[in-house]
Amino acid sequence: MNGSPEQEQVADVQTHPSTATARVVSEGMERHLHHPKRVLDHGFVRVVDYMGDDAAIVQAARVSYGTSTKRTRGDAGLIRYLMRHRHTTPFEMCEVKFHVKLPIFVARQWIRHRTANVNEYSARYSVLDREFYVPSPEHLAAQSNTNQQGRGEVIEGGEADEVLRILKSDSLKAYSSYEFMLSSNEEKRGLSRELARINLPVSIYTQWYWKTDLHNLFHFVALRGDKHSQYEIRAYADVMAAILADWVPVAWQAFSDYRVNGFELSAVGVNCVRRLLKGEKVTMESSGMTRREWLEFEHAILKD
Amino acid sequence: MNGSPEQEQVADVQTHPSTATARVVSEGMERHLHHPKRVLDHGFVRVVDYMGDDAAIVQAARVSYGTSTKRTRGDAGLIRYLMRHRHTTPFEMCEVKFHVKLPIFVARQWIRHRTANVNEYSARYSVLDREFYVPSPEHLAAQSNTNQQGRGEVIEGGEADEVLRILKSDSLKAYSSYEFMLSSNEEKRGLSRELARINLPVSIYTQWYWKTDLHNLFHFVALRGDKHSQYEIRAYADVMAAILADWVPVAWQAFSDYRVNGFELSAVGVNCVRRLLKGEKVTMESSGMTRREWLEFEHAILKD
Amino acid sequence: MNGSPEQEQVADVQTHPSTATARVVSEGMERHLHHPKRVLDHGFVRVVDYMGDDAAIVQAARVSYGTSTKRTRGDAGLIRYLMRHRHTTPFEMCEVKFHVKLPIFVARQWIRHRTANVNEYSARYSVLDREFYVPSPEHLAAQSNTNQQGRGEVIEGGEADEVLRILKSDSLKAYSSYEFMLSSNEEKRGLSRELARINLPVSIYTQWYWKTDLHNLFHFVALRGDKHSQYEIRAYADVMAAILADWVPVAWQAFSDYRVNGFELSAVGVNCVRRLLKGEKVTMESSGMTRREWLEFEHAILKD
Amino acid sequence: MNGSPEQEQVADVQTHPSTATARVVSEGMERHLHHPKRVLDHGFVRVVDYMGDDAAIVQAARVSYGTSTKRTRGDAGLIRYLMRHRHTTPFEMCEVKFHVKLPIFVARQWIRHRTANVNEYSARYSVLDREFYVPSPEHLAAQSNTNQQGRGEVIEGGEADEVLRILKSDSLKAYSSYEFMLSSNEEKRGLSRELARINLPVSIYTQWYWKTDLHNLFHFVALRGDKHSQYEIRAYADVMAAILADWVPVAWQAFSDYRVNGFELSAVGVNCVRRLLKGEKVTMESSGMTRREWLEFEHAILKD
Repeated sequence: MNGSPEQEQVADVQTHPSTATARVVSEGMERHLHHPKRVLDHGFVRVVDYMGDDAAIVQAARVSYGTSTKRTRGDAGLIRYLMRHRHTTPFEMCEVKFHVKLPIFVARQWIRHRTANVNEYSARYSVLDREFYVPSPEHLAAQSNTNQQGRGEVIEGGEADEVLRILKSDSLKAYSSYEFMLSSNEEKRGLSRELARINLPVSIYTQWYWKTDLHNLFHFVALRGDKHSQYEIRAYADVMAAILADWVPVAWQAFSDYRVNGFELSAVGVNCVRRLLKGEKVTMESSGMTRREWLEFEHAILKD
Repeated sequence: MNGSPEQEQVADVQTHPSTATARVVSEGMERHLHHPKRVLDHGFVRVVDYMGDDAAIVQAARVSYGTSTKRTRGDAGLIRYLMRHRHTTPFEMCEVKFHVKLPIFVARQWIRHRTANVNEYSARYSVLDREFYVPSPEHLAAQSNTNQQGRGEVIEGGEADEVLRILKSDSLKAYSSYEFMLSSNEEKRGLSRELARINLPVSIYTQWYWKTDLHNLFHFVALRGDKHSQYEIRAYADVMAAILADWVPVAWQAFSDYRVNGFELSAVGVNCVRRLLKGEKVTMESSGMTRREWLEFEHAILKD
Repeated sequence: MNGSPEQEQVADVQTHPSTATARVVSEGMERHLHHPKRVLDHGFVRVVDYMGDDAAIVQAARVSYGTSTKRTRGDAGLIRYLMRHRHTTPFEMCEVKFHVKLPIFVARQWIRHRTANVNEYSARYSVLDREFYVPSPEHLAAQSNTNQQGRGEVIEGGEADEVLRILKSDSLKAYSSYEFMLSSNEEKRGLSRELARINLPVSIYTQWYWKTDLHNLFHFVALRGDKHSQYEIRAYADVMAAILADWVPVAWQAFSDYRVNGFELSAVGVNCVRRLLKGEKVTMESSGMTRREWLEFEHAILKD
Repeated sequence: MNGSPEQEQVADVQTHPSTATARVVSEGMERHLHHPKRVLDHGFVRVVDYMGDDAAIVQAARVSYGTSTKRTRGDAGLIRYLMRHRHTTPFEMCEVKFHVKLPIFVARQWIRHRTANVNEYSARYSVLDREFYVPSPEHLAAQSNTNQQGRGEVIEGGEADEVLRILKSDSLKAYSSYEFMLSSNEEKRGLSRELARINLPVSIYTQWYWKTDLHNLFHFVALRGDKHSQYEIRAYADVMAAILADWVPVAWQAFSDYRVNGFELSAVGVNCVRRLLKGEKVTMESSGMTRREWLEFEHAILKD
């Protein structure tokens, strides 16, 4: 794997000494800068650059909402106010750039977040490394019986062994074919890279630079860190959430309180809470909700 | 292939009878509506819906530029003026929605056009069909020696046979494994769909609804229809260009004249033209251009 | 006002006879097409074109989520499922284009919704009409004492008369100056339009074509139709909400139930509901909320 | 003007001491940081923060295009290659945040650049300062006779004096009315800020934080720095161009050579150059161009 892009980029770490700047600096973020965090079996997330911190959110908000806010609220109070009322533009004033290595099937979900800038490794220009995602045994799940898109119980024993064997051997076979088709000698020309790569599975790793603002990153982390999200992209969202908590601790706390750990009641849900508070007994059947809505409501509001 | 999404969607054609509308209607586009055009070996492009026509561009422009334009230019003149001066907003007033079936590696290039709306077939919810892109022999190209990202000469004979055999057998093997991992019976649970699909190559077909405005579609067609673009996405761009020519013939002609068939001179290029017009002999060496720049300049301006 | 852009555009209504199309047609929307709805004193909203209906949302969703959804849910059930789980992309498959006449200060709030296409009347090319927004007496409100950005009680009597007199006379004065500076004769050249217009107040009317997708329109209507929004833009949001209800009645109902008439509980709010259901007495002081949060919580959950 | 937002923000300069960072630092940009540059009579542009430099463009491009590019081109060569072939994504990897004070009519043109983040001073929350744009005498231009949107010759003498007098007195009158309507005492309540401000002309100054990426900033500077752009926004574009030249000198040079100082030939233009090079005499009449096209062609290619 000598000379692979990962190696080379990761080696960049040493080449970033400390320099003086008049920009705002987030001490929490400086500690993460350039250090790749492992995700899945071969992936990583690495902060390459950032702009702004909690104070930058406040600074932008004070331009919008005027100096009068200074008298009535401290910085944390203002950030919480912005989050509560979905005044999202001040959060857009912070920006972050990640270097990410991830399987193609994860990249395909990730790219659906359109408000971001991306530079991806091109398999037309370069040869991909022989690295494929293979789930660890505890993430080898059966199809859920109740959820069209989800996973059920973990597969074990002989079936698990068989699945892992297949995933490994098929990807190695595909990669051997890829190398063979690319190779040239006196007797063969070698297929173009842009064609040879069509033989590779979506479990192969790619990498990209991905840059977005804090508001869109919150949205990404909320959506892809949610339990309905596929485990493999959730693993990336979780690592990024931990970085966020160090970068903008006040905004992250507000986000947790108002978005992640809150609960959105529908009109029917509001009505059910009101009926319950009046002492009425409300069941799934009498709630007016679908089964899945009721289970979520029960979990959030009623169960211990 | 019974019951596959393609079949079902294509069968929709019959269910769209003619209805009266007070909206503007493009006769040229009505003829394309709902009829899939074949692209590559299993793909298609199908117009599902559209909004606006050449007149809608003019209508929006007249709001911006005032009624005085009516006196000085006809509709075609105004559209050409807008295109020449890159007044792009009136072109954004037309919208089109396509249903497209395409290999995943093409979809990955396509999705980089961010200003569009997309609904893609989800391999977490549903099982993918056994359809893979395999190049036809005349598109089986070797790696270019002069262009990092491109194709060189066509591969023929035994090497070609071998490549086609590999592409077919590897994809069928991957699909068999996919089906086997998904399958359940008394002895095996069956792997979840979202995991089983990671074994599939990027040559497998997916499909989506893709909706964009005319300005962004022009950009897509220009970029992906360009000779530096990979043949497989160019095949889609070409089909869409033909549809455009029927939908908004005046705008399409202006686009061809000012964007596609024009040539952008750099500051150095302007200088070379000026020197040439004064009778000076200009060569690659004395031009101040790189080799590739000079070849493009020579092709556009000097060669017959 | 002869020959003003409004007149001319509105006159377009007669020129749109019924034509046959193979596109989906929303009967509810056809009735609105081309008919301007009055908003404020001189403004209007007029549907110029549209694409899609409730069925188009379902059609796109079925591509994404597969045919299995057909068995388990009807169309309305699927649309409600999409709304509940914030699967927003199928809603983006509908598009609408409005012609709007509105005061500049409203236009400045409106344009902050970035995911839209806009062609605005240009005061560099054309002369603006002498039409200014002057509030009707019942909307002449004092500054709120409790809300930095809001209105308090209505101003009446002599103060109201004085305010209306000032707004009218200052705008007429500004317009006279505008006309004078523009005018040319033997003795004066006439100031360029792009400079003369800088004298006009933000209450003057402008107009534009504004095109967006259904998801972003929902967002616009929710945000600008909210009670914290300035009355003058809310008046436009309300008219558009009524049009939405006719265009996509099922999606609109789902939006009302899950977004507009629901209530978002923060982590603290969830905790308060749980404490209340256990019989604990919870007050503003013991709630852990700010005063404004508590008032909103009380209004949504506790009060009759 | 004590306590105005400008004063307060500008005073922030002192509070940004030098701190150590492991991020890339652009020495050229550090010199601009926090120092407001005057624009027009009361406006300014001030760099608040930035991310990246020329090296960051190269770093992102090397991920996309692979390490092979390192061997064949130096950094400057790669940046010029990217610019020439409109590979725009690496330029999106740099970001900048400005604090700008500008008249509302300029803000309205500026905001049409949608790919940016904005926090504007809100006249609903705060009272606007009494600062209006009044052109300096040399920018007081008559309407162009040949260009619908443009300026012609400078107005002088008595007409100029009259125009300046009107612009000043009308804006001061509007501001006095604004203050009067806002004011409250025992006898009057005071009109809400969101209503009182509708009386103010579009020449009044507002301010915002505006954040965008380098690719979009190039586009802004090219479009708004163009000679067809209104002088008042061009003044801002020119200041930003000078900052760009210090921030990313290599990218800026490439942009100048390939975009700003180049010339885009249409299909007809290519044909004219070819005819000229063959010795044919080509006139406006025989060129196939419109008058305006010909004049631009003549200016760029033929005239000294």
